Amino acid sequence: MIAKTPLPPYYAVIFSSTMSDNHDGYSEMADLMVKLAEQQDGFLGIESARDEIGITVSYWKDLESIKNWKMQSDHKIAQKNGNSDWYARYKVRISKVERDYEFER
Amino acid sequence: MIAKTPLPPYYAVIFSSTMSDNHDGYSEMADLMVKLAEQQDGFLGIESARDEIGITVSYWKDLESIKNWKMQSDHKIAQKNGNSDWYARYKVRISKVERDYEFER
Repeated sequence: MIAKTPLPPYYAVIFSSTMSDNHDGYSEMADLMVKLAEQQDGFLGIESARDEIGITVSYWKDLESIKNWKMQSDHKIAQKNGNSDWYARYKVRISKVERDYEFER
Repeated sequence: MIAKTPLPPYYAVIFSSTMSDNHDGYSEMADLMVKLAEQQDGFLGIESARDEIGITVSYWKDLESIKNWKMQSDHKIAQKNGNSDWYARYKVRISKVERDYEFER
């Protein structure tokens, strides 16, 4: 679903990825990552879609909460499997949302 | 594909959407929008994925180029069909990319 975020400013972490041939355990780990993120202080929402590439955008209150999540998530992913197993390539962009608007039918 | 963007700072427009039942002409229009965006001054790249929701992130040099694209795209979409036909809901977030990093196997 489209995340219900508060009024800007807030932060967006744009995670774009292509998968390797090894998908073992990926979907379980992705679900777990969302659950863990939701428990983090400063978490505002998450959106995710995948076809040829995957795009996951998570929204955060500030840079501090993103930093805390990075430390938490890196730790958990490392414990589980080693995060680079699943990805052929990924790019992470940390951005500050300055303005937003929406349409609903 | 994952967009090859220059060093930050630059801007990201995060467009998240859910579709209505009417998909007539949508795919052709989406392809045309990408072609038009690529011709705009300040366009840096675009990434798109759709499953339950669609996420399209376009990257731009500055706010001015985003504003020019919005005027251009609104115009073209309006000429074609009326943009709200296809979407049940959408949200647009204008954000400034402050930092990025990547991994490649």
